[in-house]
Amino acid sequence: MSEFWQDTEIERLDETHLRANVTERWSVNGIPNGGYMMSIAARAFRVGLSHPDPLTITGHYVEKAMVGPVELELDVIRQGNTVSTAALRFMQEGKERVRFTASYGDLDETSGVTWVGDQPPSIEREKCLTSPRFLAIHERVEMLFSPKTADWLRGRTVDRMEHELMAYLRDGTEPDVMALPFFADCVPPTTFSKFGSVGWVPTLELTVHVRAKPAPGLLTARFKTRYLINGLMEEDGEIWDSRGELVALSRQLAKYRGGNL
Amino acid sequence: MSEFWQDTEIERLDETHLRANVTERWSVNGIPNGGYMMSIAARAFRVGLSHPDPLTITGHYVEKAMVGPVELELDVIRQGNTVSTAALRFMQEGKERVRFTASYGDLDETSGVTWVGDQPPSIEREKCLTSPRFLAIHERVEMLFSPKTADWLRGRTVDRMEHELMAYLRDGTEPDVMALPFFADCVPPTTFSKFGSVGWVPTLELTVHVRAKPAPGLLTARFKTRYLINGLMEEDGEIWDSRGELVALSRQLAKYRGGNL
Repeated sequence: MSEFWQDTEIERLDETHLRANVTERWSVNGIPNGGYMMSIAARAFRVGLSHPDPLTITGHYVEKAMVGPVELELDVIRQGNTVSTAALRFMQEGKERVRFTASYGDLDETSGVTWVGDQPPSIEREKCLTSPRFLAIHERVEMLFSPKTADWLRGRTVDRMEHELMAYLRDGTEPDVMALPFFADCVPPTTFSKFGSVGWVPTLELTVHVRAKPAPGLLTARFKTRYLINGLMEEDGEIWDSRGELVALSRQLAKYRGGNL
Repeated sequence: MSEFWQDTEIERLDETHLRANVTERWSVNGIPNGGYMMSIAARAFRVGLSHPDPLTITGHYVEKAMVGPVELELDVIRQGNTVSTAALRFMQEGKERVRFTASYGDLDETSGVTWVGDQPPSIEREKCLTSPRFLAIHERVEMLFSPKTADWLRGRTVDRMEHELMAYLRDGTEPDVMALPFFADCVPPTTFSKFGSVGWVPTLELTVHVRAKPAPGLLTARFKTRYLINGLMEEDGEIWDSRGELVALSRQLAKYRGGNL
């Protein structure tokens, strides 16, 4: 079994109680990555709901989470014909760390009109810069940054906050709807472009819309921040699969506590 | 008291139970507008939490709501020093219609760096087109559509999905953080630009980030959809106040059930 699937495995105890284990392998300075926790939640919702695929998942990150066991309490709000909705308490040592809320459907069954008004960035893989491997998470996910938005990796700052990159799991796990929340939050903060690779950007809330099942291969992504206001910023992500199809949109609200300002 | 404030009034019953009344004045074909319901929720969270201002509110719309009384059940997840988080069940006739989850703070107390990477659209008010008043909601909110994106109001379609407009409440209520969720969802669907003013676009999930307290005067907004995939679309909104400051970002995931396709 792949490391990612092993590290997001869910044990069901009864109708509403599930259990998982947060490993140290997807952490940043010892703190589990918020997207990794959302991927655990995504699998718990799949176990508890009658529909298999996340359409939208929101996480409210209220307390610092830890590596170790986690108790998951499922609150099914509605099981519908085409959409099911539930909330999930992510509890460690009796304290709620994250509240997830999600609507699930079946991406193989959704039908209707398609119209696409934007394209993935064009990235030449052989010209990309890789990120330094100083965090545990870098051992698990390879990120190839487009030279167009990678000045921060050369120690230069620019007057915008944007990353364009390709990414894949090093252990060979192909991307899946369950892994998309992880990809939506594993990239260094967009503030690195503008302010350098310093500062602390804790997520308050992250919402991921899963729009299609990804094809095997590398994902291409763009993350962008347009409004950092009084220390609060959004970070918007778009993720495309190897066929060039959009598979996820993400947005988070985060605090920015820099650094050299 | 203004109509908007009257129609979002909250009665507190005890620590966790509140009550409100959904009036018919903010509805679309008899269905209460989703943003109006979120404004009711916004006021309920303010009553129940130790912080006054929404930073982020998410609504999962699971059942059709109705005009009439609503029971609100508050579930406080965490009251922190700078941020408080809670969930709210929006119940009618014993059935949950919407699940709201929100993090609140104090916008007068937030501080930190500001950097703005995008600007409001430039709209000449005197050249704007107004929307026809065939829905109850149109009697309450005036929407002035920029001619650049208002072909649909002249019966023409274009190959994009975008509205640029100015808006205000007709009763003279100045915009407030509590009203921003309403403004984030009161505009006709972006699909009207591409497919004409037909079709049904029910919201599955709406998230509004409140980024600043709006100044008095007209709001300027842009709503845009880039990805309509198998009948599911996002609609992204940006709202600026009369000083040109960004006051809210919104994103919703909605179904599109057209229409002449």
